[in-house]
Order: sequence, then C-alpha cells, then structure tokens
Amino acid sequence: MPKNDISSFARLDFARKARTGFGETVFGQGKTPEQLAKIFAAFKTARQPVLATRCTAEQAAYLAEAGIACEWDPVSRTIVSKGRHNHTIDGLVAVCTGGTADIPIAEEAAKTVEFFGGKALRLFDVGIAGLHRLLGKIDKIRKADVVIAVAGMEGALGSVIAGLVAAPVVAVPTSVGYGAGAGGIAPLLAMLNSCAEGLSVVNIDNGFGAAICACRMIKRLKG
Amino acid sequence: MPKNDISSFARLDFARKARTGFGETVFGQGKTPEQLAKIFAAFKTARQPVLATRCTAEQAAYLAEAGIACEWDPVSRTIVSKGRHNHTIDGLVAVCTGGTADIPIAEEAAKTVEFFGGKALRLFDVGIAGLHRLLGKIDKIRKADVVIAVAGMEGALGSVIAGLVAAPVVAVPTSVGYGAGAGGIAPLLAMLNSCAEGLSVVNIDNGFGAAICACRMIKRLKG
Amino acid sequence: MPKNDISSFARLDFARKARTGFGETVFGQGKTPEQLAKIFAAFKTARQPVLATRCTAEQAAYLAEAGIACEWDPVSRTIVSKGRHNHTIDGLVAVCTGGTADIPIAEEAAKTVEFFGGKALRLFDVGIAGLHRLLGKIDKIRKADVVIAVAGMEGALGSVIAGLVAAPVVAVPTSVGYGAGAGGIAPLLAMLNSCAEGLSVVNIDNGFGAAICACRMIKRLKG
Amino acid sequence: MPKNDISSFARLDFARKARTGFGETVFGQGKTPEQLAKIFAAFKTARQPVLATRCTAEQAAYLAEAGIACEWDPVSRTIVSKGRHNHTIDGLVAVCTGGTADIPIAEEAAKTVEFFGGKALRLFDVGIAGLHRLLGKIDKIRKADVVIAVAGMEGALGSVIAGLVAAPVVAVPTSVGYGAGAGGIAPLLAMLNSCAEGLSVVNIDNGFGAAICACRMIKRLKG
Amino acid sequence: MPKNDISSFARLDFARKARTGFGETVFGQGKTPEQLAKIFAAFKTARQPVLATRCTAEQAAYLAEAGIACEWDPVSRTIVSKGRHNHTIDGLVAVCTGGTADIPIAEEAAKTVEFFGGKALRLFDVGIAGLHRLLGKIDKIRKADVVIAVAGMEGALGSVIAGLVAAPVVAVPTSVGYGAGAGGIAPLLAMLNSCAEGLSVVNIDNGFGAAICACRMIKRLKG
Amino acid sequence: MPKNDISSFARLDFARKARTGFGETVFGQGKTPEQLAKIFAAFKTARQPVLATRCTAEQAAYLAEAGIACEWDPVSRTIVSKGRHNHTIDGLVAVCTGGTADIPIAEEAAKTVEFFGGKALRLFDVGIAGLHRLLGKIDKIRKADVVIAVAGMEGALGSVIAGLVAAPVVAVPTSVGYGAGAGGIAPLLAMLNSCAEGLSVVNIDNGFGAAICACRMIKRLKG
Amino acid sequence: MPKNDISSFARLDFARKARTGFGETVFGQGKTPEQLAKIFAAFKTARQPVLATRCTAEQAAYLAEAGIACEWDPVSRTIVSKGRHNHTIDGLVAVCTGGTADIPIAEEAAKTVEFFGGKALRLFDVGIAGLHRLLGKIDKIRKADVVIAVAGMEGALGSVIAGLVAAPVVAVPTSVGYGAGAGGIAPLLAMLNSCAEGLSVVNIDNGFGAAICACRMIKRLKG
Amino acid sequence: MPKNDISSFARLDFARKARTGFGETVFGQGKTPEQLAKIFAAFKTARQPVLATRCTAEQAAYLAEAGIACEWDPVSRTIVSKGRHNHTIDGLVAVCTGGTADIPIAEEAAKTVEFFGGKALRLFDVGIAGLHRLLGKIDKIRKADVVIAVAGMEGALGSVIAGLVAAPVVAVPTSVGYGAGAGGIAPLLAMLNSCAEGLSVVNIDNGFGAAICACRMIKRLKG
Repeated sequence: MPKNDISSFARLDFARKARTGFGETVFGQGKTPEQLAKIFAAFKTARQPVLATRCTAEQAAYLAEAGIACEWDPVSRTIVSKGRHNHTIDGLVAVCTGGTADIPIAEEAAKTVEFFGGKALRLFDVGIAGLHRLLGKIDKIRKADVVIAVAGMEGALGSVIAGLVAAPVVAVPTSVGYGAGAGGIAPLLAMLNSCAEGLSVVNIDNGFGAAICACRMIKRLKG
Repeated sequence: MPKNDISSFARLDFARKARTGFGETVFGQGKTPEQLAKIFAAFKTARQPVLATRCTAEQAAYLAEAGIACEWDPVSRTIVSKGRHNHTIDGLVAVCTGGTADIPIAEEAAKTVEFFGGKALRLFDVGIAGLHRLLGKIDKIRKADVVIAVAGMEGALGSVIAGLVAAPVVAVPTSVGYGAGAGGIAPLLAMLNSCAEGLSVVNIDNGFGAAICACRMIKRLKG
Repeated sequence: MPKNDISSFARLDFARKARTGFGETVFGQGKTPEQLAKIFAAFKTARQPVLATRCTAEQAAYLAEAGIACEWDPVSRTIVSKGRHNHTIDGLVAVCTGGTADIPIAEEAAKTVEFFGGKALRLFDVGIAGLHRLLGKIDKIRKADVVIAVAGMEGALGSVIAGLVAAPVVAVPTSVGYGAGAGGIAPLLAMLNSCAEGLSVVNIDNGFGAAICACRMIKRLKG
Repeated sequence: MPKNDISSFARLDFARKARTGFGETVFGQGKTPEQLAKIFAAFKTARQPVLATRCTAEQAAYLAEAGIACEWDPVSRTIVSKGRHNHTIDGLVAVCTGGTADIPIAEEAAKTVEFFGGKALRLFDVGIAGLHRLLGKIDKIRKADVVIAVAGMEGALGSVIAGLVAAPVVAVPTSVGYGAGAGGIAPLLAMLNSCAEGLSVVNIDNGFGAAICACRMIKRLKG
Repeated sequence: MPKNDISSFARLDFARKARTGFGETVFGQGKTPEQLAKIFAAFKTARQPVLATRCTAEQAAYLAEAGIACEWDPVSRTIVSKGRHNHTIDGLVAVCTGGTADIPIAEEAAKTVEFFGGKALRLFDVGIAGLHRLLGKIDKIRKADVVIAVAGMEGALGSVIAGLVAAPVVAVPTSVGYGAGAGGIAPLLAMLNSCAEGLSVVNIDNGFGAAICACRMIKRLKG
Repeated sequence: MPKNDISSFARLDFARKARTGFGETVFGQGKTPEQLAKIFAAFKTARQPVLATRCTAEQAAYLAEAGIACEWDPVSRTIVSKGRHNHTIDGLVAVCTGGTADIPIAEEAAKTVEFFGGKALRLFDVGIAGLHRLLGKIDKIRKADVVIAVAGMEGALGSVIAGLVAAPVVAVPTSVGYGAGAGGIAPLLAMLNSCAEGLSVVNIDNGFGAAICACRMIKRLKG
Repeated sequence: MPKNDISSFARLDFARKARTGFGETVFGQGKTPEQLAKIFAAFKTARQPVLATRCTAEQAAYLAEAGIACEWDPVSRTIVSKGRHNHTIDGLVAVCTGGTADIPIAEEAAKTVEFFGGKALRLFDVGIAGLHRLLGKIDKIRKADVVIAVAGMEGALGSVIAGLVAAPVVAVPTSVGYGAGAGGIAPLLAMLNSCAEGLSVVNIDNGFGAAICACRMIKRLKG
Repeated sequence: MPKNDISSFARLDFARKARTGFGETVFGQGKTPEQLAKIFAAFKTARQPVLATRCTAEQAAYLAEAGIACEWDPVSRTIVSKGRHNHTIDGLVAVCTGGTADIPIAEEAAKTVEFFGGKALRLFDVGIAGLHRLLGKIDKIRKADVVIAVAGMEGALGSVIAGLVAAPVVAVPTSVGYGAGAGGIAPLLAMLNSCAEGLSVVNIDNGFGAAICACRMIKRLKG
C-alpha cells in the first residue's frame, strides 16, 4: 500500500474500497491549495481516480498551474482527476430540485453519481408550488433506481415524490431561504417529519452524501 | 354599556364589535370554572352570544351544573352559549387537514366559523403523502372563500393547496409529530417558508386564530 | 403556451394566473444576471408583465445594459418590467412600519401591491413606543381593505392595529434589531403570539409575501 | 449571629440586610416541607420575618400542622411569617398584567412589595389588544414610583407603558401562551427588544425578582 | 376498491402498494381505540394484512376484546393483524443498538422488517464506549443487505459501522439521554454530521421509518 | 411644536420629555448619513441636544463635513450634539465590566449617563476569575446610586456585585465570547437566572438601554 | 471471563477495568427492575462490586425483595452492592454546590467517589450571591485533589472556585431553575464560557460523570 | 508587585500563579495591536513569560515592528514571548484530531502545553470513519498523562479514545462542519452525551482551555 501520511496533515484511506466498496474521496473545504495538490498527487501515485468536493476556483487554479490533470466544475464546485475512470456502479439516479437555487447541491450529487460510473437524470425546478411541473415528469422519475430530492424552503419535494414512486428517496435539504428556519433548518425538519415512506435524509447541502448513499444502495443491492 | 370588570380578574371588551366587527370571545385555558361561569353570565347580561375555546370537560360540567345554557363539544374543546345567534358573516370556509390527528384543531376552526354565521366545509386526512386524496377534492375546495389548511408533520398541505386555488389560505401548524421539530415547529417553519403565494400563518394549534382571520377577510371584503 | 423551460434552470409557471388569479413573479436572489435576463425575455415573449424581488444593483445594471425595458428601485430592491400593466386588483392596502429601518421591507410590499394594480397607503415609523404617532393616523388606516404591519424589535405594531381596525392584518416581522431574538425571531414570535384577532403572519422580511396575501384577499373576496 | 447551618442543606444569609438593605427570603420550590419548616424556625430564632415564594399547598399544610405562625396565599403561592413586620420601604408600585392568566405572577410581585412595607396598586387584564383598557388607567399608573408590567403572549404591555410614564418599568414575561415561543420565550424576547426606554427585564415568571428590583430602587434612591 | 372513508376521520390509502410497492400501515399514536378497531376492520375487508405502530396496551386490549385477530408486542408497541402474511421483500436487515435503552425503537424496526417478509438480525448494546463488542460482531453485520443503526447519547454507532461495512446504513437517533441535546437532538445532529459515507438518517425514535427505507431499498434494488 | 416629519422616513418624538422625563435620542444603526444629518438638523431647530448611538465613522465624517456641531467617540460609537447641555439627572452610576472587550458597550452606557447630566464611575476588567480585582473596588462601587454591570462570557459579574451592594443593578450581557452561547446568549441567560436580588437585565450589547434605565430610576426616585 | 450476555439486552464490559482502570458501573434509568436484578447477579458472579446510578425506589425495592445485598440512597438515587469494596483510588474530592436544590446531583458525585475508594468533602449551598459563604470555606477546598462544582441558575460557582484554587475543577450544571435557560442550559453555557482556567464541564445533572473524571485524574496522575 | 493597571483597559493578574499555579496568559482576540504590545511590555517588566492566543497576523506584525521579542505561529494563532521559559509542568499530553481541519485548534492546545513546559504528542486525522487509523496509534496514546481529543462533525473521537485508555480525556469540539449543528454544536452535544467515562468537555474551539485543564491536572496531581 502506498504511503498515505502526507506532510502530517492527512491520513488517506486507500483501504476504504476494500471495506466499503467505494474509494476515498476528498472534502476540499478548508484545505489549502497546496494540501489539495499533495492529496491529488498521492492518489495518482496510488493509481486511483479522485473526486474532490466543495472546492474553490482558487484551489482549481492552483491544481491547473501545478500541472495536475483534472476537471473543475464551478456549479457543483467539484474537481475530478482525469485519466482513470471508476466503474463502481451501474444504475440510474434521478436528481430532482424544488427550485433553481438548489441546482449547485444537485449538481454535486449528480457529479458524484457520475464519478462512480452511474447515470444521473437531472430534473430541476419541479417544486410543489406548481404541482403540474412534477406530475408531468413523474414517469421519468419512476425509472430511476434511487431518487435524490434536493429542496430548500418548505422542503416538501421529497415527501411528494416518495408517495408517488417505488424507489428509495434520499432527501437533501438546502440552505436556500431566509427568515425563520433559514440555513436549511426548515426543509431539514420537514424532511425528517415526512409522512411519506421510504425517505431518508442527509445533512443540509450535502449533495455528495446523498449521492454516495444512493451509490452504495445500488452497488450493494443491485450488484 | 354593561359593567365588564368581573371580580377584578377580567375586563371584557364589549366594545370590540364596534371596532373590529366581531364580538369578544373567551380563551378558556387557565381560567377556573368559576371565572368562566362569571364570564358567561356577563355575556348573558350584555345580551351577547359567546364562544369559549380550549375548554376542559371540567369547565363544561361546572357550567352545566350552574345552569348556564351552553353546548360543549369535546373534540374541538369549545363551549358555545345557547339562545342568541351570530349572523356576522356570510361565506364558505374550507377546513382541510393533513391527517386524522389534526382534526381537533380543525374542528376548533370550523366551530368558530359557524359561531360567526359562516359555513365550514370539512375535508380531513387529505395530506400530501397520497396526493390523489387531495386532488380528488380540489374542485370542492375551489368553491370556498377562504381555505384553512391544518397540518402537522412536514406541514406541506397549505403550500400544495395555495398553488392550486385562488382563495387566500390560512395555514395552521399543529403540534402533531415527534422528534426533531416536534411540538409543531417543523410544520410552522415549513409554512413560513412556503414557496406558494397567498399563504399566511397563525401560531401552532391556533385553529380559532385562523378562523377569525378567515371571518374578518370575508366580513371586511365580501361584505 | 410559450416554451417555459429556460436553459434547463427554471420552469416558469405561466399557467399560474389561471389557477390562482395572479401571474408568476420572480425571486431574484441567488439568480445570476444572465438567468434573470433570460427570464425577463421569456416574460416579454409571453406578453406578460413581470416583477422581480430581492434584486441587486448588479442584476439591475445587467438588465439595463442588455436593453431590457424595466425599472429598478433600490430601496425595495425590486425590478418591474415596463410596457404592460397589471389590473389584477382594485383595492387599498395600508402599509405601516414600526420604525425607519423597516422601510425597505414595507416598500417591497407596497411595490408589489402597486404592480398588481392596487393602491398602497404608506405610513412609516408609527411604532408603539410613542403611541400618539399611530393613534393620530388610525382613521386613515381604517379606510384600507387590508393592513400590512411591518415591524422589527418587539413587533407589537400589528397587534395594536388589529385591535383598532376591522380589516384583516398581515404582519411582517423584520430582521431589524440585535441581541437575543435578532434576525427577526423576536418580532416573529410576538406576532405569532398576538392576543389580537385577525392577524396572520408571513416569514421574516417577506414583504412580497404579505402583499400577495393582501392582493389575493382583495381579488377573491372583493372581486 | 444565630447559627445558620441547618442540617447541612442550607446556609441562611442573615447578614444580607446589612449588605443589600433587604433581609433574606426563601425560594420554596424543591424544598421538602421539613426543610421549609426548619428554615422558618431559624428565622423565628433570628427574630426576622420571612417570605417564602413558589410554595405548594402541601408545604403550607405541613407548616400549619407544625404550629408555625404564617399565612399561605394560594394564588401567589407565597407563605409569609406572622408576628413581625417589615418596614423596609415606603413607596408605591403599580403591578399591571396583560391578561387574567398572568395574575399569579403579578400577585407574587405584589405580595413581595407588601412584605417589605410598600404599597401595591393592582391593575389586571389591561393588555394591548384593547388599548382603551390601559389608556383609561394610565393616570393611576403614573402615580407609581415603579411599574411592574407582567405579560405573556406577545409581551408588549411593558413597552406601551414605558412610552407613557416617567417611572422605571420592570417587565416580567410569563409562561402564558402556547405554540412557537411558548413557555415565556416570546414575551421575554419582545421585552428585551423593546424600543421603549426605561424598561428592564427579569426572568420568565419571576414576579418576586421584579418586586425586589422595584423595592431596591425605592429604598436606595427614594430613601 | 373497498370504501376507505371511515367515519370521516381517515382516508386509507389502499392504492399505495401499486404506487410504492408497500401496503399502507397505521400510526397508532393519537388514535382512539375505536378508530383503530375500525381501521383494522377496514383492512380485513380489504383482505390486506396491517401493521400498527406506536400502540398502547389500552388500544391492544380494546382490539382483543373486540375480537380482532391480531398480536400485540409491548416492547416495540406494535400490533400486527393475524391471518394474512406479507411476502413483499426477501432480504436481511441488521438492526444494531448502542445501548439497552434503544431496544424498543430497534424492535419497532425489526418487527416492521419482519412484517414485510424480511429477516432481521438483532445485535443490541454494541455501542462505541466498548468497541470490542462491535468489532466482535462485525462479520455478522457484513452479511446484511442493509444495516439499521439505532443509538441515543452521542449517536456514533452508525458512523463507526458505515466505515466498516459495504451495505447502506440507515441511522435512527433515539430520545435516550438527558441534559443538553436531550430528546434525541444530540444523536440526530451527530448522525447528520457523520464523516462516514453511506449513512442516511430518519427522525428521532422512528424505527418504523428506518425499516421501511431498508425494505424499499431491498425490494426496488434487489428485486 | 416643530415639524417632525422628516422626508417621510422618521417621526421624531419631541413630546417624549413631557411624557417620560427624557428627550428623544437616536439609534444610528441602519440610518444613512443623510438621514442622520437631517435628524440632527431637526433637533437643532427644536433647540434640543441630541445623542446618537451605534454610529459609524462614516456617519460621523458626513456630519462633520455637513458642518453639524457634534462630537464623535469611536469607542462608544456615539455622536453628541454640541452647544446645548442636558441637566436632566443628578446622580452617580458605576459602570463595571468583566473584561477589556466589554469596554465599548460600557462606554456607550457611560456616555449616555453623562449626556443626561449624570456622573459615571468607570471600573473596567474586574471580572470574577480574579475576585480580588472586584473586592478591592467594592467600596467605590457602593457609593453609586445605580450599578451597571457589563459582562460577556459567563456573565456572573452582576450577580456577584448585586450580592455585595445596596444599589439596584442593571446587567448588560455582551456579545463577547465564542462557541456555545456565543453572541451574548450565555451571559444573557446567566443574568436572567441570577440568584442575586435586585438585578434586572437589558438586551445584549444594549449599553444605552441600561443607562437610560439607570437615569430614569435616579430622576424619578431621587428627584 | 464470565458470560456477560444477559438475556440479550445488555453486554456487560468486565474488561473495562483492564483498559481504563475502573470497573463497569450501571445506568439504572430506563432499565426494568428485572433487568437491574439480573445485572447485579452477573456482577456478583463476576465477583465485582457494582454501583448503579439514577435508580428509582421501585428498582431498589425489587432488588431488596429479590434478596440482593445492596444499599439504596434516595437522595443520590444510587444503589451500591454490599460485600466487596473498591480500593481503586486514594485521594480527596471536594464536592461543592451553589444551592440546596443541587444536593442530589452532588450526592451522586460524592457516592461515586466513595464507591471507588476516594474521600468526598461535601460543601453545600455556597453559591455566589453571598460570597462570604464560599470564601469562609476556601481553605478547606484548597486541600482537595480535584474540585467538583455543582450549580444551577447562573452557574458561576465553578468559575469563582477555579480562580481561587490550584486543583482541576470539574463543573456540573444542574437542571435547577426555570424560565429562559431552564433545564440546565443557562449554567451549562456559563460553565462552557467560563473565563477561569482549569475548568472542564460534563453534561447537565451528570454527577456520576464528574466523579469518574475526578477519579480517573487521581488514579492516572497521582497513582 | 508591578503596576498592572495598563492605560485603564486591563488589570493583569500577576498573582494568579500564587493562587492557581499558572501565570496569567492573554486572550488576543478583540484587543488592538497597541493594547497587546502594552500587555507584552508589562509582562516583560514583571519578568514573566507570556502566551497570547487567538492573535492575528496584524497583531504579530505590530509586535515585531515594536521590537518585542516574541514568536508568532500562524497555524495555532499564538504569540509567545522569547527569553524566559516556563518549567511549570512535567508530563506528556496526547493531542489527537478527527480530521485535517481540526489542526489549528489542536495546535493551540499543543503550543499551550509546550509553553508551560510539557510535551505534546500530535496525532492528527485519526477520526472514527476509518477506525484502523486510530487503533494503529492507540499504544502511543496510552503513554500520555492526559489526552486532548479535538473533533468537529459528529465528534465521537473522544468517546472512542476514552473507552480505550486510562488517562483522563479532555474533549474539544471544533466549529468544523456545516448544516444542522454547524459551528460546533453537533460535536459539543455529542461530547456532553458521551457514554464513555472520564471525558470532560471545554467550549467549542477552545484548544487553550483544554490544554490548561490538562496542565493543571498534571501539576496538581503528578506534581
């Protein structure tokens, strides 16, 4: 196993794939560009592809200048290494949002699904204030193995979908909104209190977390 | 004007009808049966009908024993004086609930609408986890002058209705539920964060408050 | 119906007017200037006027440069398209504030009322610490079809007004204040706990929401 | 000084009067009837009168059976020793409440004022939803040295009074109310955020605390 | 389809199985024994088995007296109808708890899994304060299709398991504990903030909700 | 009385002195420099001195450039008009702080006392972690008519002082601190829960509010 | 090692002493009397003494009837097995309380210290509202190896002590108090925000937790 | 004793070492560079070394320019005076972190331990999502006199360590994380609710506080 103790600040978990089925990924937030570059280099040495989430444009620019082969997506704030691909899962994940402002979180989820080899069906701005938008797409959503419902505000999207489809639904509250319950608390509580069945929840704005849940379900259960 | 200073504990506001269009009502909770009886007697002297909310069976029994002509409804926990009727408003209020457990609050609202002379259309257990239940009744709801949406849990009923009808919607969160956001906080926040238009909110479990809002809208605007 | 799927980020709801009586509007916050410009263009294509709220000076400048005919108001942070006018409602809404700092939210409400064809009566800085200011204006307020009470700090303005007039009152807590209950929590809780009748509440700083509630009441009930 | 170490559970502070001007009092809640009886006996030995607050009927009955000369008031839940009187202060404190349910806390305040020799002017149920009730009594309130404003729900009583009188106002939020902000949080926040001047606040339901503040002001400043 | 409008208080959703793959179940809490009995009768008429959760001994006794064939389990507080069995899923769910006090919630989950035809592997009191207890059982847990981790207090059980196995983990915070973060808030927040992958969360004490999530994953993905 | 309706944004309360004994003051925060300048001009026209709190350097510079005779203090963030002096009260207020970081709030209080003609005794950094610092100054503090205790962190300064002196104590929590209870919540709660007598509380960082309470006590009671 | 899997509900950790230096203890709350009895029997079989905390009188009575040799203390709510003694530590722990109502939690701490062989110095009702009570005992407290400071209300006792002694202080907030910050939140936050050094905190009412911390310090460091 | 009243803003506590065993240190946050320089000069005059925490680069630069002999560490944000050394304690403190982002807080702790003469063993990024990382280092950790466990997110590191070692553990929650429980609330609550023994907690991000607790334990108990 390659040395994973990088300059005393991080212990990469290259054994994770053996334990959980999915290789280690990187949470970019709070890391210096130098730290991130060293981590990408370590993955390259280990001959593993890598996905970093919550990255800044500054981090991406540093990696580009440092000659690291990778791709930066400013909407989802992800950086993916080039060259090696994952074929970890084979399945379809529908990623739906209540509004336009939820898209960055949804894209983080979709990019994660795609990093691990899955397909992502994007259906954005189908919130419940205009139900016809969702009902018009429900047949498409029913084809997915797992549904990720991303919503801020009153956060009811996941409940409505879970009542209409047979797939498991992972709900992601977003920090979209203001006033009482701002920062995602209102949709988080709504999702935890859902009266629909088959809905589980991840933390506010955790698009990556929802995606890795969906991927694990597919890999473990669908094979 | 009749004397309204009852034994130094309450100052009844018999002038309210002149100011706001609606006679005073009584919040029963926390009052002793004796206090409530004196208040009912004062209304009788003032030749005004009276509605008391949040009353207990014990209060109701005391009034009955004291020979006060009134009717007790255990579901809505209201006591209404007999003999004089209100013809304050003329209109239809739809009172919808998400679940069975929201019925007591909805009944408090419906009884209040009826006390002031309005008609109440009751549609219970039409929550969003099974949308067909609501969509099957939406034409009936569209006939109402005002809609009162009573819901606990994720509290999305009002948002969905407000996106489908033209009437103003008053949303009442209920303390139904448990865990995070229990006590009505989750549906309250969801309702305040509704992305639907035309929805305003009253306090948790305040069926009376929603009804008096609806009645005021009808009286002031429909005449 | 015009195509409403704009570059995959938004699904405009041009059918809303048929369902709820009011055309779609736009929440500007969090949208890029480009997205907002595309949305304004779509409304023009659909031959509908449009109101955007929570807009920045940067968004307004972009629209102006892009040659979109519209008007930007920096106090209320609204942008309204020019050319087509709404005559959706006919009524008078009194918009009152407790203090000077509440004015931006009150202006958002007033502009919304005016966008839909209503009249707005502005009465600012009439908070309860100097009651004579409010009492001196109460006869004017009594002429309104609906009252919008905008207040931060202890948030008691709505309660006092609702006890003095016959019109429905929509209360808007503002994020004015500091310390315990900052961010609008103190006035929100005060308004939800109002002992006055006929008062309903919208989310903190939601001037638009209060106005659209008032407009719906007028359109549905006054005709 | 008498021995004040009673059975190892309490250290009575008989030196307090020398330091702060007021003799020690007793917080009855959570003490066993036996403990309370021993404390009353110690005060008797020390030849000092004593006031106990938050007492239960059970505690009162135990003291009566034990032959301790004292008076129990079930509304304010206070027990006052008989025989020796306090003439600590000379002044008038107006004790006002927003509603009927606030009376027990107001009575705790009034009894405390009277225990220390002051006069209490009781004005109950003068809340702001019917302003005429308060305005009709304002001249009486203006005669007080200090005003104690006791209110639950939206808690605006103190703000309105402080804007109309020259005396210092001590505001007491009460746990009257339900839903969001229940347990006194809503009026506490409203009082802390008051835009009126001259208003300070004590903890929820702390009628005793407000009274001892008022008494200290009178003793220290009026002499 | 059978009539599902029972005495105007509930609208049973017998069409749910067609939409989501799982038949309707009943939330017993807050329902009167009479209401529950009518619901069980309606299921019998519909020839469907039924699971009721959060039931009291009183409800169970009423059903028994009413001659309804069902089984009451006091630990999990579930009532299951007799006679018809579900064969909805085929899979193994590991149900682990941190402590002894979490067992009732874990049993609710296990009974739900079994109601729908799955197998439940119970592993109780394997919390992280004594890691050897969990590590000694990890090979058994690795055989499960889905893991349900039930924990109160610091709620770290799910994180540790999710780092060691390949199956999706549904975490259930319980209201076990006291002091700051009591009522399940501490473990809920810990689970939402888990740095392990593949963990999603349901509301506090919602053993049923976790189980139906697990069952949906198995049915949808494993077939 | 002078015209007090300034450009429709503020209604100055020049009658306040007659009602409450103290002239109006101005809350600078959130006002534009132009608004503040107009307000200072209106006070000059009314021949009244004015104190503005929570002012920025930018506001102060604007007033200076506009030729308004006033004094800016950057520590307390106050601006006081020059020329006319207040002789409203005659008394001594001790202003104590727990630490160095509390000084700006304490200075706001001291400047307010001085604006109204009182004397302020400043005793800073006498917090309870080194009790000898406070005990060494207690004789000085005992000479004050009122004590203002300004403290962040655990906020115990007011309790300790109130147990040692006979004057009323007004406690001001400050937003000094970090982590749990940050923003002043920890000292606010500590002050509200004080077991010392004679302590009342104002909102977090409200040095002005504490001072005007102290001044009112002195004016009303000491004469 | 003895069998520690008792009827499938608990896995006793008899190896703990080897790992951490202290034998397992039992949290009695939430366990049935039968479960507790089985656990005591298991300890007897393992020839280890046992301490159970948070026990009820009902549990104690059951154990007594079952013939288990143990001692029940109703104030601290502890049950200790008879026969075998612990000589785990040798040291002195001062257990101080702010008030009388904090005694049960302090006794839980003291009994725990004594169970493990240490000495407990009890100093109750020495809160900061009357500092002379604490200062008069400070020389005794200075002799302790560790100080446990138990306090509710404003919770400042630990800060004052930590500023006066050289021993480590473990602070225990108690749920004594009412109103804002009730349930121990106010003292918990005060303790976490202490500006004194050498103070660490355990959860509200966790007397046992503080004691085991103190014992570990003594055993590990003093030997 | 040297004059410690510096320009009226601070009262340095040079007597602290005599009382508590440790010399005074300085909390840099919120102090102006000038204030900090004066404080460092006062320590030099008093011939005492000094540690300042939470310092900014700007403060450090000012001290350097002012010719004060000191060392600035940007990771831990500490400034330590040069020239005089502390030999207050003799012991080993293990400082562990859950992740990379917790390092600044851990370094604050380690630098504090070293300032007082102790040895710090740094073990970073050994969080529980990959248990093997911690288990591989546990023998090293077991050699420490005290363990400081620094963790954000779900904050379980301290619990796991406390179950595996005999040393007292001081847990430091960090403000690392996002969403529900952000700002360190989630790990704080998890640590307070730990089911492991021997764990006490300091405030969020308070690395200094944990270290001074550890040092006090070592000095007082190990000698």
